[in-house]
Amino acid sequence: MPSLRPTFFVLGILLLALAMAMLLPLVADLTVNNPDWSSFALAGAFTTFVGGLLALSNRPGERFSLGLREAFLLTTLSWLVLPLFAAFPFLFFSDRLDLADAFFEAASGLTTTGSTVLVGLDAMPPGILLWRSALQWMGGVGIVVMAIIILPFLRVGGMQLFHAESSDRSEKIVARPAELVGFIVSIYGVLTLACFLAYRVAGMNAFDALNHAMTTLSTGGYSTHDASMAHFQQPAIHWIATVFMLAGALPFVAYVKALRGDRSALWKDSQIITLLSLVALVALSLGVWLSMARAMPVAEAMRHAFFNVASIVTTTGFASDDYSLWGTFAVGIFFFLTFVGGCTGSTSGAIKIFRFQILLLVARRQLRSLYAPHAVVRMTYNGRPVPEDVPQSVLAFLAFFGLAFACVTLALTALGLDLVTAISGAAQAISNVGPGLGDIIGPSGNFSGLGDAEKMVLSGAMILGRLELFTLLVLLDSGFWRW
Amino acid sequence: MPSLRPTFFVLGILLLALAMAMLLPLVADLTVNNPDWSSFALAGAFTTFVGGLLALSNRPGERFSLGLREAFLLTTLSWLVLPLFAAFPFLFFSDRLDLADAFFEAASGLTTTGSTVLVGLDAMPPGILLWRSALQWMGGVGIVVMAIIILPFLRVGGMQLFHAESSDRSEKIVARPAELVGFIVSIYGVLTLACFLAYRVAGMNAFDALNHAMTTLSTGGYSTHDASMAHFQQPAIHWIATVFMLAGALPFVAYVKALRGDRSALWKDSQIITLLSLVALVALSLGVWLSMARAMPVAEAMRHAFFNVASIVTTTGFASDDYSLWGTFAVGIFFFLTFVGGCTGSTSGAIKIFRFQILLLVARRQLRSLYAPHAVVRMTYNGRPVPEDVPQSVLAFLAFFGLAFACVTLALTALGLDLVTAISGAAQAISNVGPGLGDIIGPSGNFSGLGDAEKMVLSGAMILGRLELFTLLVLLDSGFWRW
Repeated sequence: MPSLRPTFFVLGILLLALAMAMLLPLVADLTVNNPDWSSFALAGAFTTFVGGLLALSNRPGERFSLGLREAFLLTTLSWLVLPLFAAFPFLFFSDRLDLADAFFEAASGLTTTGSTVLVGLDAMPPGILLWRSALQWMGGVGIVVMAIIILPFLRVGGMQLFHAESSDRSEKIVARPAELVGFIVSIYGVLTLACFLAYRVAGMNAFDALNHAMTTLSTGGYSTHDASMAHFQQPAIHWIATVFMLAGALPFVAYVKALRGDRSALWKDSQIITLLSLVALVALSLGVWLSMARAMPVAEAMRHAFFNVASIVTTTGFASDDYSLWGTFAVGIFFFLTFVGGCTGSTSGAIKIFRFQILLLVARRQLRSLYAPHAVVRMTYNGRPVPEDVPQSVLAFLAFFGLAFACVTLALTALGLDLVTAISGAAQAISNVGPGLGDIIGPSGNFSGLGDAEKMVLSGAMILGRLELFTLLVLLDSGFWRW
Repeated sequence: MPSLRPTFFVLGILLLALAMAMLLPLVADLTVNNPDWSSFALAGAFTTFVGGLLALSNRPGERFSLGLREAFLLTTLSWLVLPLFAAFPFLFFSDRLDLADAFFEAASGLTTTGSTVLVGLDAMPPGILLWRSALQWMGGVGIVVMAIIILPFLRVGGMQLFHAESSDRSEKIVARPAELVGFIVSIYGVLTLACFLAYRVAGMNAFDALNHAMTTLSTGGYSTHDASMAHFQQPAIHWIATVFMLAGALPFVAYVKALRGDRSALWKDSQIITLLSLVALVALSLGVWLSMARAMPVAEAMRHAFFNVASIVTTTGFASDDYSLWGTFAVGIFFFLTFVGGCTGSTSGAIKIFRFQILLLVARRQLRSLYAPHAVVRMTYNGRPVPEDVPQSVLAFLAFFGLAFACVTLALTALGLDLVTAISGAAQAISNVGPGLGDIIGPSGNFSGLGDAEKMVLSGAMILGRLELFTLLVLLDSGFWRW
């Protein structure tokens, strides 16, 4: 039985932090005299109460430690409980949502998925818009910290490959985890500020620039406009978004290394090279094809191609145009890009680049071992040997990703969704992307058209995907609770 | 460099056998005075010439042996070259097909997929119908022999798990491979005869019964009627088909064991138990749902549910009804059933039951190792320990199956097919099932509506799936040819 005391204590602290964050939209609504400030006050008070109670009643004694199983439990509980409390403001504000909608919106925010059930964003009070952006921004940095500090330690889905990067004594980049977290939060903040300034210069107003900077860096994709990024006509804004979505999808450890003097960390990392090459290759092809087959001016074609490919691959989910009208091939490409994801240790979701790289290594070894059974094929990744348990972890992750995708799709068809909506909805939710395909949830659609049951299934899929599957699945094994 | 001489010799022998088989439709057309007999005569003569030339000019010397790489090359070449020659009669007969159509029809036949480009089957001369059924029948037995004798030896996609069954000295079921092949062909023949008699008794005419017996046991799914099995109104015929499709999807080694005195072989094999339980569970649920939600009489609902679930899971592809009209949930279920497949060492295709069983074992071990890193989890399958290299082979197979599926789908969308047609077309082709989803290639559709390029892509996918991916992919590794 994992020890609940330290787990609940940390959960309480996280809830208190969430309550603090509610001050931001509260102040925003007070400033413009919008009565919705009271919903944040109410939610904040309630969250403070519960968080405080949890933290106080589980205050650790002299010996405070989180073991392996406590880390699993805490990680999963955080991603289940925080969205619940983050949903409260949506329940009480003027356009009050029902519970399924509110939880969906909060889960989509914190997991940086970006699917929304809200319609009429352009006319909404600033508080609620700011709350959505803040959820994604906090979710984003939470994901990076989880991916760098916790998951490699839990050895989830091959993440032990990155264990060395944060804790190997021989190549320690900073002295203590707390210091690493400090670095990451600072870099995240500076990048967000840079994005904000760039958006301002390119013509956004301050409120839009702030919100979009938060949802760009976190590869979340919430917007303050129903039309998403298509609302902005300035080409520069789309290019700025493209750059900063990609910045959010790079491994933050590489930024830390670069800051600490290792200038080559950013352009010698094989994950970064592969991600950027993939985006460039697909976007260039799509851009050429758009300008030829659909007679779009070249500059516009390239802008839309790069923006939307980067948006899906980084799992942001902004749209600058309805790419589902670009023809069957574009639809096929965007469907499969949904699964790709950015780099590990970034804010992006989905399968992620390194797993495809490991898969290719395994494939080569597998093929070679078939015709030359006694040949020894060494696997190296980023110049280091790949630990023996990584290939199997990665392959199991991929197989489970497929199974989870199938189960969610089946559940959605059982609830009455057509195959395209179900299949693309399941894919985007598990991958934390945002838009799906089809008339309902496509890039110009909205999730408000779905029923409560569909929304709960999708919320669960977002959280499952965010927890890299195994962090949650491990809790379902009876043995986990036994000893 | 693999040695080509013995490879080409065996290929020549196989072509001679194919030419012999052309006598069957030749005689049928001669009997009814249909001029198409000449197309079989022409094709037969040409195939005999090429096959004879290959066999004679590559006659092995005193020392005849096929090494590991020769076995890979021969297996892949057979599945590429035989469909080419099997396509010849389609080029010359009265309704002459073009090359893409003819190759598609022959590949779909020999791989026992069952997708057809022919329309107006009911009015076609007997020769061409018999040729299609014979292709599936020969393909079916070829697949069983390949799966039992060759693939475990090649260790493709985890098939080494079944190596023991055919060659382990401690539990050898028959003395020599040739004897095992003899047993398998006999069992296959007897089951086909039993199916033929059952169809006759249930009311089919002799010609229909012969053709459908051949395409049922081979889990192929070609019919002599455009309406497939929906042409027959007798419920008994649908139940007989259900039983014999499942019979074709059981491991033939289990039949051999049962015949040799091990009576429990058929009902103690965990693959068989899992397959039959799965079919029963899904079909029962679907039947109950059909009778409730769609107000179908219970007997009819159960018949259609069992028939169509068995048809897709065994990768046969007969249809007794257009299940794509049964609602979104049924569509979702049938889409994912496409990937399941029957038992290894049977005539069925797709991923196959044992790989899902191994996946579950790996999942349990993976989950346990996450929270209890030092626990040792032993994996046993069918009462024996699982060899160490099997899990990784199986997982790599699953990952590659996903990748191949994505590539074929993308190619089909690039050629202009909508997402549902592309995605279900790719799935059914790689899984050797037959029907897809959507208006064009759904259970009541036909592949004649596709373009030549789409047909070539699908033909390639059928062959790739039939070769369990790796048997073909291994030839693409440059190292294979080097030494």
